Amino acid sequence: MSERYEVRLSGAGGQGLILAGIILAEAVGIFDGKNVTQTQSYGPEARGGASKSDVVISGEEIDYPKAEKLDLLLALTQESYETYRGNLKPGGLLIVDSERVKLGDDVGKNTKVFAAPMSKVAREQIGRELVTNIVALGVIAELTSIVTQESLEKAVLQKVPRGTEELNKKALTAGYTLAQKSSVSMS
Amino acid sequence: MSERYEVRLSGAGGQGLILAGIILAEAVGIFDGKNVTQTQSYGPEARGGASKSDVVISGEEIDYPKAEKLDLLLALTQESYETYRGNLKPGGLLIVDSERVKLGDDVGKNTKVFAAPMSKVAREQIGRELVTNIVALGVIAELTSIVTQESLEKAVLQKVPRGTEELNKKALTAGYTLAQKSSVSMS
Repeated sequence: MSERYEVRLSGAGGQGLILAGIILAEAVGIFDGKNVTQTQSYGPEARGGASKSDVVISGEEIDYPKAEKLDLLLALTQESYETYRGNLKPGGLLIVDSERVKLGDDVGKNTKVFAAPMSKVAREQIGRELVTNIVALGVIAELTSIVTQESLEKAVLQKVPRGTEELNKKALTAGYTLAQKSSVSMS
Repeated sequence: MSERYEVRLSGAGGQGLILAGIILAEAVGIFDGKNVTQTQSYGPEARGGASKSDVVISGEEIDYPKAEKLDLLLALTQESYETYRGNLKPGGLLIVDSERVKLGDDVGKNTKVFAAPMSKVAREQIGRELVTNIVALGVIAELTSIVTQESLEKAVLQKVPRGTEELNKKALTAGYTLAQKSSVSMS
């Protein structure tokens, strides 16, 4: 990938989206060897209660690390979906938690949509809703070619608290499976 | 502060500089209400073994979140000092760990320098070298006006692992004291 690829992970505070952004960035940058920047913004500029973490990937040096035309938007809550869907570029991929996000009829004609119950899978299959962020990373790795599963797993194991490695590996695998079982629809 | 202020926290991997950057950004953005972005970069662009975390603060919207002319550089290792000192702008503030960094004779004529044994204080006064990052945040809060101590303390308590709150409060206080006792020299 030499082109720029912009990812925004969004949801509510406490859903571990900053950690997920850092894990994705380290997987892509340290283990896959691409240029990547990972950014969060706060203050008046950060709108409402939605939390976001941006990851910009490029084959070239990243001069402008601000994500503005998203190739991929993950939205784990209705509020984050409403807040950021306007930033998704035509043809972009929207990944939402189907249990939490009701898509509008007006979701862009030219958007790829993947809706799956990531928080439910985390809660019921892994037993910890807290790992929804890691399930979502698994979904992203399976649906796109921005990161290899091997690198993602290394980065996850490096960043999660000691003693939770197995739990988080299971969460990743649950994300891969979830993405394999479901399909991306063009709206 | 309406002007842009660029901070780089640098050192080695494992010294908790990303966490320190996020804590500083949340203190400034969420609790002090300024616009702030926090960024890390990886990949070929990230040079050598030095680890860095950038925080850009502004009274206005931050259109360009990349830190290029640093107002403040924290360097906890010799390598990070060597790698990033060229990015410090004239009149900028250089904060180094005096136990780890040997300053060159050629350190810019117009640089404010604060050298103090932050890792030693963490190790000997707090009993955990791991909190050097938090001692450094205390030093930064005491030496500059970019963040209030009240906001910094809130952000620290929100982000550190449960059970380590008291330890980290002590580390902050040790940083304030260290900065009060020592003085900034113009080289």
